[in-house]
Amino acid sequence: MLPEFNDLAGLRRLLSDLPDPDQSAIDGAAERNAQLTKPPGALGRLEDLASWYAGWRGDPRPRIEAPQVIVFAGNHGVAARGVSAFPPAVTAQMVANFRAGGAAINQLAELAGARMDVHALDLDRPTEDFTKGPAMSDADCAAALKAGWDAVDPKADLLVVGEMGIGNTTPAAALSLALFGGAAEDWTGRGTGIDDAALVAKAQVVSNGVKRHFGGDGLELLSRLGGREIAAMAGAIAAARMLRIPVILDGFICCAAAACLQSVNPRLLDHAVAGHQSAEGGHPALLERLGKQPLLTLGLRLGEGSGAALAIQVLKGAIACHSGMATFAEAGVSAG
Amino acid sequence: MLPEFNDLAGLRRLLSDLPDPDQSAIDGAAERNAQLTKPPGALGRLEDLASWYAGWRGDPRPRIEAPQVIVFAGNHGVAARGVSAFPPAVTAQMVANFRAGGAAINQLAELAGARMDVHALDLDRPTEDFTKGPAMSDADCAAALKAGWDAVDPKADLLVVGEMGIGNTTPAAALSLALFGGAAEDWTGRGTGIDDAALVAKAQVVSNGVKRHFGGDGLELLSRLGGREIAAMAGAIAAARMLRIPVILDGFICCAAAACLQSVNPRLLDHAVAGHQSAEGGHPALLERLGKQPLLTLGLRLGEGSGAALAIQVLKGAIACHSGMATFAEAGVSAG
Repeated sequence: MLPEFNDLAGLRRLLSDLPDPDQSAIDGAAERNAQLTKPPGALGRLEDLASWYAGWRGDPRPRIEAPQVIVFAGNHGVAARGVSAFPPAVTAQMVANFRAGGAAINQLAELAGARMDVHALDLDRPTEDFTKGPAMSDADCAAALKAGWDAVDPKADLLVVGEMGIGNTTPAAALSLALFGGAAEDWTGRGTGIDDAALVAKAQVVSNGVKRHFGGDGLELLSRLGGREIAAMAGAIAAARMLRIPVILDGFICCAAAACLQSVNPRLLDHAVAGHQSAEGGHPALLERLGKQPLLTLGLRLGEGSGAALAIQVLKGAIACHSGMATFAEAGVSAG
Repeated sequence: MLPEFNDLAGLRRLLSDLPDPDQSAIDGAAERNAQLTKPPGALGRLEDLASWYAGWRGDPRPRIEAPQVIVFAGNHGVAARGVSAFPPAVTAQMVANFRAGGAAINQLAELAGARMDVHALDLDRPTEDFTKGPAMSDADCAAALKAGWDAVDPKADLLVVGEMGIGNTTPAAALSLALFGGAAEDWTGRGTGIDDAALVAKAQVVSNGVKRHFGGDGLELLSRLGGREIAAMAGAIAAARMLRIPVILDGFICCAAAACLQSVNPRLLDHAVAGHQSAEGGHPALLERLGKQPLLTLGLRLGEGSGAALAIQVLKGAIACHSGMATFAEAGVSAG
């Protein structure tokens, strides 16, 4: 079962000792793959996905039967600085839309046969504006991480985490800049669709925040730059790592959360693949820093976990082929 | 209903008069898209796909309920020239595997909720070696085109055509070279996995064939270079165009069939999107000549319709969002 933690130091301790994937399942999957009725390698990345998934599930011929999509929502003090095209009230409105089944992620989760959970994190208590002070106390950050950690169903066999939080590409850009350096402009994008002038101002906000709060590992940066939903995503991805539940990462904000974990332990994202490359400006560079090749590149920039939920279908295709196909011997096909 | 034809000239006549997509459905889909609970454009290519699909189905809020996957199989005289890593007997063995449900395409069609049909075209009567003479008579080619034409279910709301035919990347490369020019090496790839020496020899076979049979439109070239399953794919794609059934194109061989149609009428592929970019050498250039951006790039090179069948899921995601999401008014969300 999943151990518990009370503060950032406690989580950091847990994340220093990570389980490995099951090598015998990986070997068994490779042996099976070599016997399937297709030329060697002809299913390309689907073959790699099947092997990766088999290792984390500890089953050389796995099935995907219980995917879970969790959407976390949070509000951001920094939104008051005009960094978004939408007003902060939209965060709560969209949470209601998620609960009523009307958002994009509802349709994509249903199509993928995934259970979907929504966690709204203190929406009436936005994080502080990080250009003025820390976004959260360490205790608040630990609570948000724990909300994500506890939200993962230990019986899930695949996890997607998504988010909603007006203004949240700003802390995601700040986290990326703080973790990887470069210029604020490298990481700052148009989010839901801001114009050129707002983009310049947003990069300045990102730069100011990181000047104020540099240094420390990903968990400390999460406290200082926020937000709650980003910390919760990190908590959920970390819990899945402990539980050996494979994760499909979503876009820029999800990958910023993941990058905070990577800074704590470089093996923390071995159980994760990149679902898609978003149209948000900083995402390709962030994927590169995570060493992840996206499964889809379709110009999505919605968040909510939408790109990752769509990518569940690619993984399902990989597993359907790997576990469902006949071998050369079974089908009486000459192996070349 | 679908009209009939008896020879290549008859088909050519039918394909000179093509129906248009439904502009009022496209306009209705655009109006709906603008009201959905997401920032404008945030679903990227999924929004374009929904509009395209709505136009061909004549419905501003369509569903995908009856996708059809058809796999055509044929044998090739040119296979005797050592152009494949597998013996010709594998074509019939794989047809048996398709019928028993053991191939990759069976798993992917099932996952997509698609009906799957298999048509084996005179497997015991391979086409002639096109380096020695025409692969088929015009009558045989018309019969193969007609087999594809008649295989499309008029009630299908989406079509994928796939193929099986040991050696068939060779006629596909020859068709591409004959249609678009360049060097034989530009279009000749490793197929199921030939080595460097065989690749050089294969390019020579392609070059010799095209030197012998250049000129004419795509239908004439199909007769001379083959093969039956490629002609049948072209017939099915053309029938879908007449019936306004959207098509997802598969890899190199499917796109070579499509390119033959494009040479007959440049509007013939307006109802088709590219499902994926294959790892087969000539496929990226072929997609470029068709003016199609692939939905997936996952290194697949299996054929059978596998990449296109996987891409059905992307289109399903697009339609699920477009037709299932709430509008701003329905959800009480501020539109920014």
